Amino acid sequence: MSWQEHLAQSADRAVVDLVDFCRIPSVSTDPDHTDDCRRGAEWVVGRLRAAGIESTEVIESPGHPVAYGEWLAAPGAPTVMVYGHYDVQPADPESEWTTPPFEPDVRDERLYARGASDDKGNMLAPILAVEAHLRSGGRPVQMNVKFFFEGEEEIGSPNLAPVFEQHAERFSCDAVYSADGFQWDQDQPSLTTALRGVCATRIDVYGPGRDLHSGSYGGTVHNPAAALSRIIASMVDDEGRVLVDGFYDGVAGLDDEDRRHIAAVPFDPVAYLKDTGASSLFGEPEFTPRERAWARPTLEIDGMWSGATGEGRKAIIPASAHAKVSCRLVAGQDPATIVAALQRHVATHIPLGVTATVNDLQVSSAAYQMPVDHPANDVATTVLRELYGRDPYYARTGGTIAILNMFRRFLGADTVMFAFGLRDENAHAPDEFFRLSSFARAQHAYGRLFEVLAAGTRQ
Amino acid sequence: MSWQEHLAQSADRAVVDLVDFCRIPSVSTDPDHTDDCRRGAEWVVGRLRAAGIESTEVIESPGHPVAYGEWLAAPGAPTVMVYGHYDVQPADPESEWTTPPFEPDVRDERLYARGASDDKGNMLAPILAVEAHLRSGGRPVQMNVKFFFEGEEEIGSPNLAPVFEQHAERFSCDAVYSADGFQWDQDQPSLTTALRGVCATRIDVYGPGRDLHSGSYGGTVHNPAAALSRIIASMVDDEGRVLVDGFYDGVAGLDDEDRRHIAAVPFDPVAYLKDTGASSLFGEPEFTPRERAWARPTLEIDGMWSGATGEGRKAIIPASAHAKVSCRLVAGQDPATIVAALQRHVATHIPLGVTATVNDLQVSSAAYQMPVDHPANDVATTVLRELYGRDPYYARTGGTIAILNMFRRFLGADTVMFAFGLRDENAHAPDEFFRLSSFARAQHAYGRLFEVLAAGTRQ
Repeated sequence: MSWQEHLAQSADRAVVDLVDFCRIPSVSTDPDHTDDCRRGAEWVVGRLRAAGIESTEVIESPGHPVAYGEWLAAPGAPTVMVYGHYDVQPADPESEWTTPPFEPDVRDERLYARGASDDKGNMLAPILAVEAHLRSGGRPVQMNVKFFFEGEEEIGSPNLAPVFEQHAERFSCDAVYSADGFQWDQDQPSLTTALRGVCATRIDVYGPGRDLHSGSYGGTVHNPAAALSRIIASMVDDEGRVLVDGFYDGVAGLDDEDRRHIAAVPFDPVAYLKDTGASSLFGEPEFTPRERAWARPTLEIDGMWSGATGEGRKAIIPASAHAKVSCRLVAGQDPATIVAALQRHVATHIPLGVTATVNDLQVSSAAYQMPVDHPANDVATTVLRELYGRDPYYARTGGTIAILNMFRRFLGADTVMFAFGLRDENAHAPDEFFRLSSFARAQHAYGRLFEVLAAGTRQ
Repeated sequence: MSWQEHLAQSADRAVVDLVDFCRIPSVSTDPDHTDDCRRGAEWVVGRLRAAGIESTEVIESPGHPVAYGEWLAAPGAPTVMVYGHYDVQPADPESEWTTPPFEPDVRDERLYARGASDDKGNMLAPILAVEAHLRSGGRPVQMNVKFFFEGEEEIGSPNLAPVFEQHAERFSCDAVYSADGFQWDQDQPSLTTALRGVCATRIDVYGPGRDLHSGSYGGTVHNPAAALSRIIASMVDDEGRVLVDGFYDGVAGLDDEDRRHIAAVPFDPVAYLKDTGASSLFGEPEFTPRERAWARPTLEIDGMWSGATGEGRKAIIPASAHAKVSCRLVAGQDPATIVAALQRHVATHIPLGVTATVNDLQVSSAAYQMPVDHPANDVATTVLRELYGRDPYYARTGGTIAILNMFRRFLGADTVMFAFGLRDENAHAPDEFFRLSSFARAQHAYGRLFEVLAAGTRQ
């Protein structure tokens, strides 16, 4: 029996396993679910052992543990790490779910449950793929696979660095394949070659010592909300270019090939405006919207507040004004350097009569980028081309995934986003689901990935 | 017995009356106290009758009633109206009061109670003064006094216009003396010759149809908080001059005498900064701080809000951003015209990719100004000079009192602020009090005012 036949025969059991896994409310953000997170890790380790992976461990961290397993069958052959996470987003508001979030339900060939797509269905697939290789009776493919499933993805992996520090050698690998992520759509595969980084600050502007009556005092002291507006307006020009000195220093430019890869991904401005509800596109006119979202740094106001924000009228000069300002960063930008540049900018743009400070909110992460022609991408491209009958887009994403920098920093390994969820599957929202067709495709994709990787060695 | 002797003999009873009056929780803002407001009006009318004023009435309005009385003893002699209000501010937080707000307590020659200073003590004084003239056995002064005590001062007198429309002839008078207001300090009298007007708006900026993930979308659409900051920054320059086209049209300039009167009022910048807590003064450098607060229009941001305002981090492009923008106005400015100018300014400064509107919050009131050498000021000056042994300041105030425009509009009468509270008496705050010395001085001041007014006729 081939591994493909084994997957086909075990398809029903695979769904039962996923249902079982999704029953565990492993909500990492909620201290009430700490024990459930541990149950999640133990379930994964148990499933790895059932798949034939003999070396497994629940590795402790200062937070939720890592579920780890190794299948080291071929000394000298390449070693890949498969990444995923067993923790899930909170399920509230539960009242908006058609069926309860932790009582998985199959409807219309979709499994509905919190975590079904993000990331339990996706991360279970490579385990099932290895199992198929091991249990199908044929000679297992000659390679080494390490499984690394964390329990803190949904809270930004705050406790992983010490785990990497302690186990760097044990985790060593040639490349990471992440079972957390998306495909472009049901018919179109994609590989993500760059993600933006992030830094976040809060600007605090202080004026008078208390809210002042605007009649009695208006005209004598500076209004902090007006002063903050002036500061913010000084940071970005009217076409969206960031005016902070040093902001673009070292930013990696886009060469013709970069622009070609980005332009190859269809972009429909009408559909984009309809989706976002914005009245027009906005940003550096020297770049296309996709280039701006995927390959250019930006500065955004996440929120701001000052004085009277409720109903009715309160005639005051507020004592203070505040804004949360975050930047998305690209390769070549260091988050700490950018925070310092923002601090310098504000310090040199403080309006008369107020004080202003920029506080680092300590959520920094550098951008991540790997070459389009990285060997790990080549392998993934081969598999995706077979499965979908077409070449993947070499896409990017404007968001940030902190762990990619950890894999690079601690293990020297790049990461291929190799996951099969789709963007419409309500990750982080009520009625999350995973298509059973995507689940099956993911298992085949990983089965074939291991085969191609091993074949690459034999060449 | 002279009226002065009558006041001296009735001093204790006057305090008992004020205690009685202050027991009524006539909180106009709170619908639960609607009946208490009516009790307040009835108490005042009863006290007017007890004073010898035979023609009294509780005049209904769409809101709280007006307590009205007339003493028309001298046909052909001048008629003044005395204004005050029997309603009070809410007393919360009651826990911060040393003694309960509606259980008046005398300590250190001060009467502590909500409304003691603002305005029950002040408004009771002219009633007691007329009573002294009527009851002292001498020939009452030859003049006419109308008493107009409203119950909605603390909510902006929203229901008074129809009362004036219906009773304009009955209320007709030569001048109004307001028993609501302040003296400069215990030793220094003042007359207020101008108050600023006000208009208030809310600017609403809308961008995307929902909060967007700043990673996925940042760089493609305009951030409404940044756009609002740009709009606000366009409205005032970096020295505090308003840049809205037409804003200063028709603004009455300051002549040498105006500037001299304002400069005669001491201003200590060090004490001012200590009081406000601001790090420096700010505003049109062509004018002094007092000129700016008293005689120049300003534009203030009362509050603003957008997106993520709580703790923690939310990386979004907010769907909208909002600011409350109000202006203090001076003579020559029409509130509706200024609102229209703001609307025009914003309409011509809308950043790309957002919509922005300016909504009139409908709290407009024009500025109020009367000549320093108005005959009613001359009379008041005579009385204040006698009582304090020095000339009053001809001051102004940056705040707004809507009813002054109603007296002018419906009755053609100007108003002299002739009240004896001091600014440290915790009006609108816990532990409000009225100095018994101020209470006695107020009674004498009104007694003498009536005498001087009548004497003016006989000349």
